[in-house]
Amino acid sequence: MNEVRIGIIGLGFIGCMHAASLAKGDVPGAVLTAVCDSNPDKAQWVKENLGENVTLFTDVDEFLTSNIIDGVMIATPHPFHTELAIKAFKHGLNVLVEKPAGVHTKEVRLMNEAAAAAGKVFSMMFNQRLNPLYMKLRDIIASGELGEIKRTTWIITNWFRAQSYYDQAGWRATWAGEGGGVLINQDPHQLDLWQWVIGMMPKRVRAFCHFGKHHNIEVEDDVTAYVEYENGATGTFVTSTGEAPGTNRLEINGDLGKIVVEDEKITFWRLSVPTSEFSLSFKGKGFQQPECEKIDVPIEGEINEYNWSGIIQNWVEAIAKGTELIAPGEEGIKSLTLSNAMQLSTWTDNWVNLPIDEDLYYEHLQEQINKSKAKVNV
Amino acid sequence: MNEVRIGIIGLGFIGCMHAASLAKGDVPGAVLTAVCDSNPDKAQWVKENLGENVTLFTDVDEFLTSNIIDGVMIATPHPFHTELAIKAFKHGLNVLVEKPAGVHTKEVRLMNEAAAAAGKVFSMMFNQRLNPLYMKLRDIIASGELGEIKRTTWIITNWFRAQSYYDQAGWRATWAGEGGGVLINQDPHQLDLWQWVIGMMPKRVRAFCHFGKHHNIEVEDDVTAYVEYENGATGTFVTSTGEAPGTNRLEINGDLGKIVVEDEKITFWRLSVPTSEFSLSFKGKGFQQPECEKIDVPIEGEINEYNWSGIIQNWVEAIAKGTELIAPGEEGIKSLTLSNAMQLSTWTDNWVNLPIDEDLYYEHLQEQINKSKAKVNV
Repeated sequence: MNEVRIGIIGLGFIGCMHAASLAKGDVPGAVLTAVCDSNPDKAQWVKENLGENVTLFTDVDEFLTSNIIDGVMIATPHPFHTELAIKAFKHGLNVLVEKPAGVHTKEVRLMNEAAAAAGKVFSMMFNQRLNPLYMKLRDIIASGELGEIKRTTWIITNWFRAQSYYDQAGWRATWAGEGGGVLINQDPHQLDLWQWVIGMMPKRVRAFCHFGKHHNIEVEDDVTAYVEYENGATGTFVTSTGEAPGTNRLEINGDLGKIVVEDEKITFWRLSVPTSEFSLSFKGKGFQQPECEKIDVPIEGEINEYNWSGIIQNWVEAIAKGTELIAPGEEGIKSLTLSNAMQLSTWTDNWVNLPIDEDLYYEHLQEQINKSKAKVNV
Repeated sequence: MNEVRIGIIGLGFIGCMHAASLAKGDVPGAVLTAVCDSNPDKAQWVKENLGENVTLFTDVDEFLTSNIIDGVMIATPHPFHTELAIKAFKHGLNVLVEKPAGVHTKEVRLMNEAAAAAGKVFSMMFNQRLNPLYMKLRDIIASGELGEIKRTTWIITNWFRAQSYYDQAGWRATWAGEGGGVLINQDPHQLDLWQWVIGMMPKRVRAFCHFGKHHNIEVEDDVTAYVEYENGATGTFVTSTGEAPGTNRLEINGDLGKIVVEDEKITFWRLSVPTSEFSLSFKGKGFQQPECEKIDVPIEGEINEYNWSGIIQNWVEAIAKGTELIAPGEEGIKSLTLSNAMQLSTWTDNWVNLPIDEDLYYEHLQEQINKSKAKVNV
């Protein structure tokens, strides 16, 4: 295969950004050939920013059957992600979906099945998996240096949004337009990293979402979630768009110490013997602890939260030469499961076991959508 | 009144420490005249460490009616605190109780009623209220500089204990002997500070205690609690005796910024306008936040977590000249309510509204005590 021909659907903020990036050659081996947006007014922007060689479609089916694209990047509002991905797979195209994978796991499961049936290259835009900070963290944990995981604590409250942010578009922060708030819009990267860095999903979730607590919006803008893992570990995830300045602090405790990721630094308190072993073998009366060294973990490469082109590059190489995917599309369901479970736990005021009851979640979501005041048709 | 005559009941670790401290004159205006312990073997220790002028009693009633004490410090195992305090009040004595106030709020309420009826000076050994770190924090919050409280997050997991700590005595970490684990033994100071520094108790609690998770013990050694306050604020409290090295990090978010207490330092991110006001008045599209200055808050005086003699001094001055109490005894029920509520929420697997149903808690506790393997009679 020569250059992989890319089409982008959805010319909103992020779609335009990806298009401009591809057009200026940020991704070697890829060429932007087409874009698609239902709004014909985008023609001017396309001409000015993408040049004469990129075709603008306003009809999705014409775009998908144009035979001028090998892979499609889906950058529409999230309620359209899965439907469009499924269509693209049916037309034999490779697919890269913006986060979140979709609005509910029921539709994402169908998307994953369509991907499997098509056998095409399917990736998710989890660009934070290329952030050297979390890559290093994942490597340390995978190496066993931290020992068995005992606790994860993520305070991710640095998502402050003023009311004007939500007032920009009628679909924003509505059940009909987004299917959620901070969990579905701001947090998908962290929800993905939370499970990706430790390689474990929780087995059950008890969460406390607050809807329109800090803003005049329908959806959640403040969440505290508690989770339990199969191995007995526990975790909390605290997030909000209503606090300033927020915090982004991830603490992971293992049998061999503690790691804290904060202020773009990783600090590792590494024990010489596992806590569990020390607890049983220490015979003194006092309060001694295992010997510990504090390490400022060196990070290789520049810390970059926004390495979208790295994910596009990886997807393109997977299409062209079978390179292993960094963010396989099928894994998008994991963070969405966490997000859906947190909302469902709040609505049912009860535990939610994973995998979640997708039909029950869907019912509850529809109920919210039916009550939604969103006047727009996204 | 000349010197206030002090008697100490319970010559365990902490009782001996207080006795030795008083005997060497750490508290001006106070004189240790008597000690009481049911174990007559303590006579040697008393003679060697406290001198000839301190009388040792082995019978509580003789001690309380000896007419050689004005105030009694109760330093027995916690299941005896309230019964002894009530007796002391009935004999017209002033009382200082070691933490926790008792094992369950039902008995502590009776103690508080006895104190009120006696009209004597009643204090709790909440010596961390004299820690300049938390005094400063409380002052900042009381001054309104942080604005309305929105969230409290305390990770207090630096209570690592090896199994040998629990194996030292048969009553340790048993339902019959202590009535709980990390919440009742290690955390009373933090549970007290948690409500004291912000001046608010939660209105409801949902907690997840794990019993004997990290150790071979009956009681909780790992807890995650989520709380909601009347004003809409939320909070989490995470604690454990099974992690090394632990964390002690308190974050409090208000409408005017954020305060973090960690590593014996207070950092205050102070906003120029309240978040709520900024959210409504900011008209841009972007992600701007209110202007913020980061302040390393100066702490007056040496940071001292262990200022027991300061609390004794304050209690003695309150007896001698009516000085206001730093830790009024009646406030001991607050931290115990939080502790009881966290256990009850776990047992009932449900929310616990405050004030808690004391009878229901008592029933559940008795059930645990009946199943307790503690062979000792404390």
